Amino acid sequence: MARASVREQIVDAAYEQFHRHGYNACGVKLITDSAGVPKGSFYNHFASKEALALVVMERYGDTRRVPELADRTVAPLARLRAHFEFLAADIEKYGYERGCVFGNFSNEAADHSPAIRDGLVTAFATWAAAVADTIREAQADGSVTTTQDPEVLGRFLVNAWEGAIVGERAAKDGSAFAAFFTIAFGTLLS
Amino acid sequence: MARASVREQIVDAAYEQFHRHGYNACGVKLITDSAGVPKGSFYNHFASKEALALVVMERYGDTRRVPELADRTVAPLARLRAHFEFLAADIEKYGYERGCVFGNFSNEAADHSPAIRDGLVTAFATWAAAVADTIREAQADGSVTTTQDPEVLGRFLVNAWEGAIVGERAAKDGSAFAAFFTIAFGTLLS
Repeated sequence: MARASVREQIVDAAYEQFHRHGYNACGVKLITDSAGVPKGSFYNHFASKEALALVVMERYGDTRRVPELADRTVAPLARLRAHFEFLAADIEKYGYERGCVFGNFSNEAADHSPAIRDGLVTAFATWAAAVADTIREAQADGSVTTTQDPEVLGRFLVNAWEGAIVGERAAKDGSAFAAFFTIAFGTLLS
Repeated sequence: MARASVREQIVDAAYEQFHRHGYNACGVKLITDSAGVPKGSFYNHFASKEALALVVMERYGDTRRVPELADRTVAPLARLRAHFEFLAADIEKYGYERGCVFGNFSNEAADHSPAIRDGLVTAFATWAAAVADTIREAQADGSVTTTQDPEVLGRFLVNAWEGAIVGERAAKDGSAFAAFFTIAFGTLLS
């Protein structure tokens, strides 16, 4: 099998390093060192760290299992639970270190980079809309009450999930995620 | 009036700069330049940036109006609403730039600094307990249903608030906060 291209090695390394260190603490040199490529090669492939961050955000989004929220072979409420359980396991496996790339970039880069901010707005909107569509299905099959606007609740849950990660990075014991599941599935999606 | 001590000038500047730039993007030189003091003077007053961050966290906590949550001259549900409305206004006034110092530090520093992580655990726990106590009062006066555990709901709401900030730093239009108020006060605290 051919060796990954330099560009691909840089994206792989950046994916790992942005996730681990966040945006500001992760410089081009850290990325190229981690990729095992010369720092000078970076600018042959990317105009800036920001441009690379946009590629990483897109790739990260592809791993969030958002399309599975539309899988009608599974009951909608079970799909919602599986979605957030997957996300929780993905944070837990790193001992609650690292966070969500979207959340990290919102905190660190959205104020300073219009391009990253635009990417985040799209990512959060796509994700919240998929959650809202699944809530709507769950309301239609009677597993979730219809008292709440699915769009508002979808937006709220996506943000509340990001906040559970914030709490969990401090607590590192699963208690913030547990509170999320209790209220989200015990009250809001019931 | 006497000029603020160098230590005080450093804390004031750090409070501002940590809030604006987060932990990693805010170095000692940025803080001392912003304070108008020589960089060398920093280590006369603080052992490290981390030690200063702990002082800033404590001062920030003092501004979050957590004691007002126990003010029994105001109805408990009104107190909860006033609390989150104050926090929302405090973010909105910066055009949704900056965030919560606790949330920023959780994302950026909790993985790497045990001291900051300990401070965050205490700050979030104190805050969530004050919210829980107020929910308990609201349950007792009948303004909030007793179906939810006040401790779990308090914890959830504090985290959901942090997540609303994450969403708002991308959206910057008030929509994430609006979703928080709709679900928190329309469903969870009703």
